[in-house]
Amino acid sequence: MTAAEPPLLPDGRVIVKSSNTAECIHVGTELLELRINTHTPFIAKKLLALGLKIRRAQIVGDNLGVIQEAMKSALAKNDLVIVTGGLGPTFDDLTREAASEFLKRRLLLHDEIVKKIRGRFNHLGLAMPQNNKKQAHVLEGARVLDNDVGTAPGQLIKIVHKLLVLLPGPPKELENTLDKALPFIQKEFPCATCLVKTFKIVGLPESCVEEKAKILLKTLNTKQIEPIILASPYVIDLIFRVRGQPSAAIAKIKKGLIKIFGQDFLGEDEVTLESVVNQKLAAQKRTLSVAESCTGGLIAHRITNVAGSSACFLESIVAYSNKAKIHHFGVKPNTLKKFGAVSCEVANEMALGILRQSKSDYALSVTGTCGPSGGTPQKPVGLACFGLAEQGEKTLCVEKLFSGDRDVLKERMSSFALDLLRRRLLATRPIYFFLLFLAALFVST
Amino acid sequence: MTAAEPPLLPDGRVIVKSSNTAECIHVGTELLELRINTHTPFIAKKLLALGLKIRRAQIVGDNLGVIQEAMKSALAKNDLVIVTGGLGPTFDDLTREAASEFLKRRLLLHDEIVKKIRGRFNHLGLAMPQNNKKQAHVLEGARVLDNDVGTAPGQLIKIVHKLLVLLPGPPKELENTLDKALPFIQKEFPCATCLVKTFKIVGLPESCVEEKAKILLKTLNTKQIEPIILASPYVIDLIFRVRGQPSAAIAKIKKGLIKIFGQDFLGEDEVTLESVVNQKLAAQKRTLSVAESCTGGLIAHRITNVAGSSACFLESIVAYSNKAKIHHFGVKPNTLKKFGAVSCEVANEMALGILRQSKSDYALSVTGTCGPSGGTPQKPVGLACFGLAEQGEKTLCVEKLFSGDRDVLKERMSSFALDLLRRRLLATRPIYFFLLFLAALFVST
Repeated sequence: MTAAEPPLLPDGRVIVKSSNTAECIHVGTELLELRINTHTPFIAKKLLALGLKIRRAQIVGDNLGVIQEAMKSALAKNDLVIVTGGLGPTFDDLTREAASEFLKRRLLLHDEIVKKIRGRFNHLGLAMPQNNKKQAHVLEGARVLDNDVGTAPGQLIKIVHKLLVLLPGPPKELENTLDKALPFIQKEFPCATCLVKTFKIVGLPESCVEEKAKILLKTLNTKQIEPIILASPYVIDLIFRVRGQPSAAIAKIKKGLIKIFGQDFLGEDEVTLESVVNQKLAAQKRTLSVAESCTGGLIAHRITNVAGSSACFLESIVAYSNKAKIHHFGVKPNTLKKFGAVSCEVANEMALGILRQSKSDYALSVTGTCGPSGGTPQKPVGLACFGLAEQGEKTLCVEKLFSGDRDVLKERMSSFALDLLRRRLLATRPIYFFLLFLAALFVST
Repeated sequence: MTAAEPPLLPDGRVIVKSSNTAECIHVGTELLELRINTHTPFIAKKLLALGLKIRRAQIVGDNLGVIQEAMKSALAKNDLVIVTGGLGPTFDDLTREAASEFLKRRLLLHDEIVKKIRGRFNHLGLAMPQNNKKQAHVLEGARVLDNDVGTAPGQLIKIVHKLLVLLPGPPKELENTLDKALPFIQKEFPCATCLVKTFKIVGLPESCVEEKAKILLKTLNTKQIEPIILASPYVIDLIFRVRGQPSAAIAKIKKGLIKIFGQDFLGEDEVTLESVVNQKLAAQKRTLSVAESCTGGLIAHRITNVAGSSACFLESIVAYSNKAKIHHFGVKPNTLKKFGAVSCEVANEMALGILRQSKSDYALSVTGTCGPSGGTPQKPVGLACFGLAEQGEKTLCVEKLFSGDRDVLKERMSSFALDLLRRRLLATRPIYFFLLFLAALFVST
């Protein structure tokens, strides 16, 4: 610190660069009580790309004292503090005032900003309400971050070696003004870049995934690579935060995971079971139909969430009642009577029935109970039977017990069904296509 | 403070009740970098019902020191601190350890919990991995909060006049264990109750809802009642935080809203379009079948998310291709050719087709395009046609243009379809049932 740069915090504390870490403060009572917070991971991804890690995020209500406390504790431990929200025009927008009081810097009215805000209103054929002038106040010495999609600009304040950034709360405006702030942040904190890479494992419990990955995880240089394990129903995310030369390190990890997990390795980043299934079906030019009972349309819903699924997805029939199972799939009344609706025998006939009538290449079926009522000791809630039929192949039937309440059961069962098909599509070797090609040649000649 | 209750914080600070406020600490690096945080508003609603307001929420990574810092600053300012997450079985689950070190209380292995966890694994036909034993460790003197839907129990620790509550992070498990903690929290902090009441309006944009409700909102005593408006696709929430004598005030608001919004008033709190539809169908003992195209199974999925839906939901057929529409619903090839798949004419034939073959009382159909590709100037992405057929009645057909990307479009279109049926069910007057009853009498005699 030089004499030209005295400590600027009102309590006289000297500010020194500490950590290359950042902290977010999200202002807004609605974030405490009503709305889910999407800001933190959004900002985190942008900062991680600059090598800055978020140490903590605070969510505080529209309360001057609490906002100031949050700023104080955040600036004490971090080099960069990003405050979102509280820059609106109404009485409960207090971020500007909190920063002004806390830093003992005046708020100055910027005529340029008033002009811009007035312009936005005029463009919509409206007069600017007086309270919007509040948004044109900028902290003494702050850099204005233009907001192209809303009225409140962002502000970037240098406090000795640290940066305090104020950004508007609406997501589109936050994004727009954060992009303006990033070059200044990068200039101030030139760190090694950092990448967050996700690999997905399916069909194993979290603890098994950790157990199996342990040896690989132990070989990692944890200074360079930080692993995180994240569980959701059916899919386990293995996340790696990588510094330094990410591409080589990531390639090595990926290779290791594929070796350890084989077909349990689903893919990376944004892949889902349904996206892999769609992609494999499209690549192999094959089609799918689905016969659903307990999953109630969720398998079809997940498949059709993928853009372009109409190329391979033909149809799904959700048949809840026995009558509908008989009518649509040709399930034999005797099979239902002898084995019950939740049985591999019924799953088999459902899959074969929809395969036959839709003429798809593959058919998936599921029959089970998701509760809360309807379970018996022999067929408890959570039990499901699956069928995977393929033209010219024997149908694969599997019975499996799942845990969870109604929506988790639907989620897990639909994942299991999609995964059955994914594994079959993985196992389809190029030799098979070669034979098909030969057969086609033979037929056409 | 009495001599029998010495200060228990390691730094010797005396803990006194401060504020009737609470703070949340959400542990998990994934919440900083990857996942949106849904925990805070969920917990806030439960605590507000007990009169406890959340002062701040902190999100921290899987870092022992940072978790402890968060606990310290939270306990210093609040009477109740709820920590979520970090109770899993893996190396990066550190909440138990952080609390143990910070409070200088040992972690003790509970055989009962080990037995329960082992039981959960055995039930699924698996052996318990050794690392799950970690989840059976409880802080000295803590009260165990049973977890009925997962392995990690919650823990409730009394620290002189304050409460520290540790809850598992997965939403279902958080919900389950928080419910166990609430009676103890209420006993410790008997405040004036406060209620958060939500009323739902459907089918109108947020600004129209605000405009129409303005007069009612102006009559409210804002010291007693704080209104908040929250928009999501298709449904607008009007939320009221009410102090004092809530039941009378809420009844008055509800009456006012029903008068203003009529059939656009959906209901209160946890109701959804699908729960209302299911409930009305069950009450009127009527059945439903669905013919879906662009919504891809989402209507069926939403209906079957409601427990007990099997009583009224017969079947849904998701027919993406024209061929499937012809095959399953008897849509005429000529209708498809003349009007296109996205047309009221096709929607009409789809609804009538599934009504005929399923013999349900009502049938819903939807055909449209959700993009991203496939739109034309005449039939843009977002256009959908709906049919609502009823035995013995003329089919209602509606064309409507929606905005949003693929998943928002599926959501909005499925909501619109469900809402069509809801309005029809609302319009069904008791006189109709009386006539049905007379007819039945007449037939049976």
